[in-house]
Amino acid sequence: MTMRFFSDNAAPVCDAVMAALAKANHADDAYDGDALSTGLNHLFSELFEKEVEALWVTTGTAANALALAAICPSHNAIVCHRDAHIQNDECGAPEFFTAGAKLLLAEGEGAKLSPTTVNALLDATRTDVHMTQPAALSITQASEYGCVYTADEVAALGALCRERGLRFHMDGARFANAVVHLGCRPADISWRAGVDVLSFGFVKNGGLSAEALIFFDPALAVATRYRRKRSGHLMSKGRYQAAQLVAMVEDDLWLKNAAAANDGAARLGQAAASRLLHPVEANEVFLRLSAAEAKALRDQGFLFHDWGIGEARFVVSWNQPEAEIAALAEAFTRL
Amino acid sequence: MTMRFFSDNAAPVCDAVMAALAKANHADDAYDGDALSTGLNHLFSELFEKEVEALWVTTGTAANALALAAICPSHNAIVCHRDAHIQNDECGAPEFFTAGAKLLLAEGEGAKLSPTTVNALLDATRTDVHMTQPAALSITQASEYGCVYTADEVAALGALCRERGLRFHMDGARFANAVVHLGCRPADISWRAGVDVLSFGFVKNGGLSAEALIFFDPALAVATRYRRKRSGHLMSKGRYQAAQLVAMVEDDLWLKNAAAANDGAARLGQAAASRLLHPVEANEVFLRLSAAEAKALRDQGFLFHDWGIGEARFVVSWNQPEAEIAALAEAFTRL
Amino acid sequence: MTMRFFSDNAAPVCDAVMAALAKANHADDAYDGDALSTGLNHLFSELFEKEVEALWVTTGTAANALALAAICPSHNAIVCHRDAHIQNDECGAPEFFTAGAKLLLAEGEGAKLSPTTVNALLDATRTDVHMTQPAALSITQASEYGCVYTADEVAALGALCRERGLRFHMDGARFANAVVHLGCRPADISWRAGVDVLSFGFVKNGGLSAEALIFFDPALAVATRYRRKRSGHLMSKGRYQAAQLVAMVEDDLWLKNAAAANDGAARLGQAAASRLLHPVEANEVFLRLSAAEAKALRDQGFLFHDWGIGEARFVVSWNQPEAEIAALAEAFTRL
Amino acid sequence: MTMRFFSDNAAPVCDAVMAALAKANHADDAYDGDALSTGLNHLFSELFEKEVEALWVTTGTAANALALAAICPSHNAIVCHRDAHIQNDECGAPEFFTAGAKLLLAEGEGAKLSPTTVNALLDATRTDVHMTQPAALSITQASEYGCVYTADEVAALGALCRERGLRFHMDGARFANAVVHLGCRPADISWRAGVDVLSFGFVKNGGLSAEALIFFDPALAVATRYRRKRSGHLMSKGRYQAAQLVAMVEDDLWLKNAAAANDGAARLGQAAASRLLHPVEANEVFLRLSAAEAKALRDQGFLFHDWGIGEARFVVSWNQPEAEIAALAEAFTRL
Repeated sequence: MTMRFFSDNAAPVCDAVMAALAKANHADDAYDGDALSTGLNHLFSELFEKEVEALWVTTGTAANALALAAICPSHNAIVCHRDAHIQNDECGAPEFFTAGAKLLLAEGEGAKLSPTTVNALLDATRTDVHMTQPAALSITQASEYGCVYTADEVAALGALCRERGLRFHMDGARFANAVVHLGCRPADISWRAGVDVLSFGFVKNGGLSAEALIFFDPALAVATRYRRKRSGHLMSKGRYQAAQLVAMVEDDLWLKNAAAANDGAARLGQAAASRLLHPVEANEVFLRLSAAEAKALRDQGFLFHDWGIGEARFVVSWNQPEAEIAALAEAFTRL
Repeated sequence: MTMRFFSDNAAPVCDAVMAALAKANHADDAYDGDALSTGLNHLFSELFEKEVEALWVTTGTAANALALAAICPSHNAIVCHRDAHIQNDECGAPEFFTAGAKLLLAEGEGAKLSPTTVNALLDATRTDVHMTQPAALSITQASEYGCVYTADEVAALGALCRERGLRFHMDGARFANAVVHLGCRPADISWRAGVDVLSFGFVKNGGLSAEALIFFDPALAVATRYRRKRSGHLMSKGRYQAAQLVAMVEDDLWLKNAAAANDGAARLGQAAASRLLHPVEANEVFLRLSAAEAKALRDQGFLFHDWGIGEARFVVSWNQPEAEIAALAEAFTRL
Repeated sequence: MTMRFFSDNAAPVCDAVMAALAKANHADDAYDGDALSTGLNHLFSELFEKEVEALWVTTGTAANALALAAICPSHNAIVCHRDAHIQNDECGAPEFFTAGAKLLLAEGEGAKLSPTTVNALLDATRTDVHMTQPAALSITQASEYGCVYTADEVAALGALCRERGLRFHMDGARFANAVVHLGCRPADISWRAGVDVLSFGFVKNGGLSAEALIFFDPALAVATRYRRKRSGHLMSKGRYQAAQLVAMVEDDLWLKNAAAANDGAARLGQAAASRLLHPVEANEVFLRLSAAEAKALRDQGFLFHDWGIGEARFVVSWNQPEAEIAALAEAFTRL
Repeated sequence: MTMRFFSDNAAPVCDAVMAALAKANHADDAYDGDALSTGLNHLFSELFEKEVEALWVTTGTAANALALAAICPSHNAIVCHRDAHIQNDECGAPEFFTAGAKLLLAEGEGAKLSPTTVNALLDATRTDVHMTQPAALSITQASEYGCVYTADEVAALGALCRERGLRFHMDGARFANAVVHLGCRPADISWRAGVDVLSFGFVKNGGLSAEALIFFDPALAVATRYRRKRSGHLMSKGRYQAAQLVAMVEDDLWLKNAAAANDGAARLGQAAASRLLHPVEANEVFLRLSAAEAKALRDQGFLFHDWGIGEARFVVSWNQPEAEIAALAEAFTRL
């Protein structure tokens, strides 16, 4: 028997989403002209307590890259963390969608940026035409190491952006996990903290193929609708995209799924407290783990990724069975 | 009561595909590492009677643009028909994915190219460095006016491509309809006729979000796997993509659906024989129709697009009800 | 003995420009920080009777492509004439600099656009996200067939641009020849007629390597300074670029050189009046010429390009010797 | 009186180059069809003792970016030093010309890479489709800190490139200074050491606007001729470009100029030996220098750039007067 802690991308799709697809399975207008798609602005404006433009896309990479293309001209640069997904895991999607903008890499614990590290990078950037000028900042919430920015931390970076003339993007592949962890409103760690555009992830959280791209400045969305088509991301039958988002937002399903995943990770974190590389604030657990220990766990059927030498990552999915979490927690304790 | 002849994109998803999604709904490897995705090369190699590389993508635009990027360097040009989808309906996706290659527009009846019209364009192109040099030819099967290239017609263009050093792409958004119309094997109008890469459409034919990108020269697929990721088209949960393709290919569902649509269109074509702008060879019917006539049809509940002044397009979907076809045929007769 | 009527690009550099290079040959700040470069805004603001931003570049292609990148986002399109230099003779430079914008080709006699032909194209462009939306218009003054737009003709297109939300670019590779032909002020056929950005050519007119890129809306120039660097066009020793422009503008040298070339062409045009394909309004003469006649001329030592079948182009350079013009005029008469 | 040690870009053009321009000042074929341009392959093949393709370009940035575009597809990455000119001083030109390839930054003393630092970076790069795969290595000779790679050091990196499947580019903005320093043949530190393409700088060394782009694998040059045009770098009157290169290569002028600059820098280095941040191996001197000391030097008329806090850069030009070098050396001693 194997127990998968590889990735939340490997998890199945939750029932409500499958049911929504079935319910949407009738003729309607093509592309994003259907009733569900045209309702998304309203749906997310309510959720964020502000007029927003909301577009479905199929992947987090597409969401991030379209967002960055909306806020960073091709001759400019995006500041992000050295360990950011947009730098290391998207095969150059930001460079592709922006037509060659540069990513400038800043530092920070737990893959989180701070005004100190961002300012250090900005201050080292000459303003002449020979050097690519930063136009945007991008952070990941929760971070690539499962750490969550507090509302104040986001707001501090938002203030920095206003001050230094940068647009502010949040890669929210695990935005749900962050909101649950903080117990805040979605607005608190997005537009109220200065975020201009959010990649709001649903696929890791139980969706099938729908992410939401949320523009808090609706003007930024105009060109994106063309770029979405131009990049091949305007689905022919968009209603099956919109249906997923509606199902996830209705009845707070997105929060429930994230809470389940966070809880599982918290239990794992407690069981492995002495080995933690980062605090467990979302649904990921990063551990010190020797090769022998890793082998021992794998021999017991636990599947997970090494994360550098002597380190490992365990991801808890929205539907991770109780028994698997209990088993892994116990295995941690026994190590 | 309304009867939709707008677009096959507006049609629902067929039951077998929905069932396949449900069946795929369990944990498996992420991206394209799952069992279904890794089986696609075999599935399509059997279908095409040749070793191919087969990648799922989510839209025809993505399939076309990735295909063109694989065969046309950015400083070169793609020859296509003036009315080609890649020219008029993809918001510049080919230009985006190729980083600025040019589309050179050739002529031809029914949106079909011929060696004569392609050679005329090529012969008018100087070979110095000031003029963009053609590197690829792209045709649409069935064409944008619902016309089908015979195997010989494709082969003649394939021969031209070999002779003039062009790579050959086929936009097969309605490839199924063409195969059904011709009663040929898929190989006959693709690689045996010189096609290097095929955008094999399934969404218009009853799929939800999966198209297949088929490389008859497997070497061309290598960079495309990176470009698919880079363009945000590597789905996190690819198994739901692959499952659709498997369901469509198994038991010849793709042929059955296309046959149903073609039959419906044929009946409409017969009923409107005197008004046809193009022969009806796939699932689209293009008619001369005055504004008054168009209004009359709409008043009866038929929904369709005008297609220029005094002309209209009717598309028959894979699941178009018998009764709707009969009603529209009768309405045509009465006009 | 051979007499070259191939191209004004083949002509030598005029003495004043060579002298200016020699005079600039001392140490000064690098790039565009030198005294000559920093004086260009003033120089051209005086010439155009308006505050402008003026940047040197080395080629007309660079000027055009940088100008178009300043006014056309990558997901949009540029309307130009089917015979435009930017379409046929720059190997896709506009597509490269704009990162994949599309050129939409309009018609018109003598390679000149008119509101009628431009509106026809615009009216045939749907405004949905599937079709690339025009953002700019580009015309060539004098046109690729040596025809000159009058101030009223430019202004009519300028008005159309304002009305339809397009930015307006002028490829002025032979702007000097147009100004001389019209006897107008530079402003009359540029910003006063609605032009936003002008590629002001000097190389064909006696310069060595310096063209001027003139922004009548200074805000458009900001990003261009970065793009000029990014495209490798910020010369290390820019003072030798600026020196050429200063020399050409001082004492109206640009007008004198263009007048000489225009006069020569006019004489040739008169001598070949019955064969003219287009009115001779600048320094180019397009003729009907049979293969036998072309051979006869070449046998007499005249060098020129065929321009399609049975047609030929003769270009008169700023320094074309009197004797050569007289000889060719006589040869035309004798044909 | 001011004495400029700002940059070799600020120096004048040497007499032989000015004379060559004057000598080239007659009509000839346009673009690169003239006798001088067509002779470049031969000229540089002799110099490098190997069949090469040699293209003139106008700037080092253009040379580098065209070279990198020839060896790195857009979905791949270029490994270079953290302090490389292509990373920090070209406003994203490599990203622009490659259409979004990534620069991966490796470490090394004196802005020099070594197999150790390059392998460390490569070993940390996963080979899946999520991570941009390195396709090229680029080094600067002499480096950004005026350090010279020996032939063995270049060859070690060349071997690494062959082993790891990378193409190898050398930014030789100060290639001449490196050759002089090593007393080697040009071939020894280029193709014989595995370099595929060289940006061979002449402008800093006394030229006006001509750099040479040397392809040791001639096949790589084919697309570059189109890309040079497409990027606006095909000069209309290319003979004035080629003439500069011919003048610099004839009679070893490039070596003489570089030797003069190197000698001056060596004298300065000796005078400031205790303050050197890097060994002086080319024509640049990097020093520890307090703000007070910098002010003292500036008060004496010496012009130079700060290079970080407490550090400064002095560049000696090919024509730097003896007296200025002596004066600065003495000033260093007095500090």
